[in-house]
Amino acid sequence: MAGALRRRGVTIERPPSHGMGPLAAVHSPDYLAFLETAWSRWSALPDAAEAVIPNVHRNTDMAEYPRGIVGQAGWHMSDTACPIAEGTWEAARASADTAVQAALLVASGETGAAYALCRPPGHHASRDMAGGFCYLNNAAIAAQAALPILAGRGKQPRAAILDVDVHHGNGTQAIFYERDDVLVISIHADPAEFYPFFAGYAHERGRSRGQGYNLNMPLPIGTEEAAFLAAVAEAGAHLARYAPELLVLSLGFDTYAGDPLAAFKVTTPGFAKLGALIAGFGLPIVVVQEGGYDREALAANLDSFLDGFGEPSP
Amino acid sequence: MAGALRRRGVTIERPPSHGMGPLAAVHSPDYLAFLETAWSRWSALPDAAEAVIPNVHRNTDMAEYPRGIVGQAGWHMSDTACPIAEGTWEAARASADTAVQAALLVASGETGAAYALCRPPGHHASRDMAGGFCYLNNAAIAAQAALPILAGRGKQPRAAILDVDVHHGNGTQAIFYERDDVLVISIHADPAEFYPFFAGYAHERGRSRGQGYNLNMPLPIGTEEAAFLAAVAEAGAHLARYAPELLVLSLGFDTYAGDPLAAFKVTTPGFAKLGALIAGFGLPIVVVQEGGYDREALAANLDSFLDGFGEPSP
Repeated sequence: MAGALRRRGVTIERPPSHGMGPLAAVHSPDYLAFLETAWSRWSALPDAAEAVIPNVHRNTDMAEYPRGIVGQAGWHMSDTACPIAEGTWEAARASADTAVQAALLVASGETGAAYALCRPPGHHASRDMAGGFCYLNNAAIAAQAALPILAGRGKQPRAAILDVDVHHGNGTQAIFYERDDVLVISIHADPAEFYPFFAGYAHERGRSRGQGYNLNMPLPIGTEEAAFLAAVAEAGAHLARYAPELLVLSLGFDTYAGDPLAAFKVTTPGFAKLGALIAGFGLPIVVVQEGGYDREALAANLDSFLDGFGEPSP
Repeated sequence: MAGALRRRGVTIERPPSHGMGPLAAVHSPDYLAFLETAWSRWSALPDAAEAVIPNVHRNTDMAEYPRGIVGQAGWHMSDTACPIAEGTWEAARASADTAVQAALLVASGETGAAYALCRPPGHHASRDMAGGFCYLNNAAIAAQAALPILAGRGKQPRAAILDVDVHHGNGTQAIFYERDDVLVISIHADPAEFYPFFAGYAHERGRSRGQGYNLNMPLPIGTEEAAFLAAVAEAGAHLARYAPELLVLSLGFDTYAGDPLAAFKVTTPGFAKLGALIAGFGLPIVVVQEGGYDREALAANLDSFLDGFGEPSP
């Protein structure tokens, strides 16, 4: 994907470290300490497997935080698709720094749009749990980092996150579920039969102050491009009513028709239409890369998205 | 183990089916439906693995019950050590029937003691979750099945469960946590570093009506036989104050010094001392087999326990 960007003449910058502050504004101290130390503590176990993968989980009853790494792995990891090996923590931090840097550039007005090529992705990571290839919630961290700068303009800051990955952004939802300063909208395959299964239903609208500031738009498995794009346009109408000062787009290419997950049927030209729709919202925007699993097609799909983004839909 | 029993001249009876009633008195309808249908639904998936093993789990936030088998597996299974394959449901039902039959024999006064050779074990299974080789909570089902018969004697029925498996009986605790008619005491390796990690701490004393009717006695990894037996004697003092009409003993042989889990150091002769201590409580008793993983030593350890049980400590 970096190759596709270079071919367009896009400037690629390695972000500076923004330290632990932006991470700690979204994730719990216990969780950050776990992520940082998990690999070294796990690899010190007798017969340690080559990566931290949980095999036990707390249930909803009487959950006590365990001292040991095996119990903590179960506590902080919601599935087996977020292994922690040597270098995972460093990669996750660099990924989050990328999102923060993009957010600061856009929030400060230095640019109207920035794309954060985040790897690993982030939208399944909640305040204290990894899951689904995600460790640090890059999109949430970006939105949170932008808020103080927006607030500096002298009014109550408002940001929004629109998640168009094929999976519900359950981590992002959980992080902002009781807040009204970050509107969260997610368009995704119906979780009744699709990861993350336990959240992403239409009736989840937020809680307490956040009531009404979470919007899920689940679509059936097999959804065609036109229906997907219609949902994005509908999300745009919601965004217009909320009128955020900054939009974070959680962009997944796993809605692609050729993606091995095979849930939605967006074509490569369809991503240009997506880009044009998003640009047409007319909002300062931080694009954060989430999923996408047809590696052969990722560059072409990003290229197409950026083509469309350069020619906004009215 | 059946061989050891036959050599003693013990009568071994295959229990009749007691139907779904005793199971439904302890477990949720959703969970029982899941256990009964999981294997056939799972094996109908494309590329189904040879057993149902969960790879996703709900977190504590916004948990919705999913329709599909993959999500339900994560919902109802707390770890990867409770695979469901062909025959698992039938085995779990037979195991529970064994415990119910033993409970009915003792509760009705037909015998003062019965031993339920339960396989699979049960004490990690909660109302709606399997875990740690357990599907149906045999000990809880036995205690629950006994209560109406004890009540028939014209007073408020009181049962107790004493769990001497090396693991905390987290499922049993959860099932009775808000009740005062079944006292639950568990002696086990400290969960801070040992399965089930998330429960079994000393401060967990029960909730609402159940406040004070749950007692955990965690002991350090490496606990010697004498300290283990002292804890059992202390549990006996608590039982004497509660004065139940029936005791269910969750008996594990994984406290054995030679067990591969290597947490406690009880010797084969030590199990005779355990048996004598338990018999000395002088209570009608249903012994329910839980764990024990040194298969070569299981028969000798059961033999030793029964030897001691035949000669109660004063």
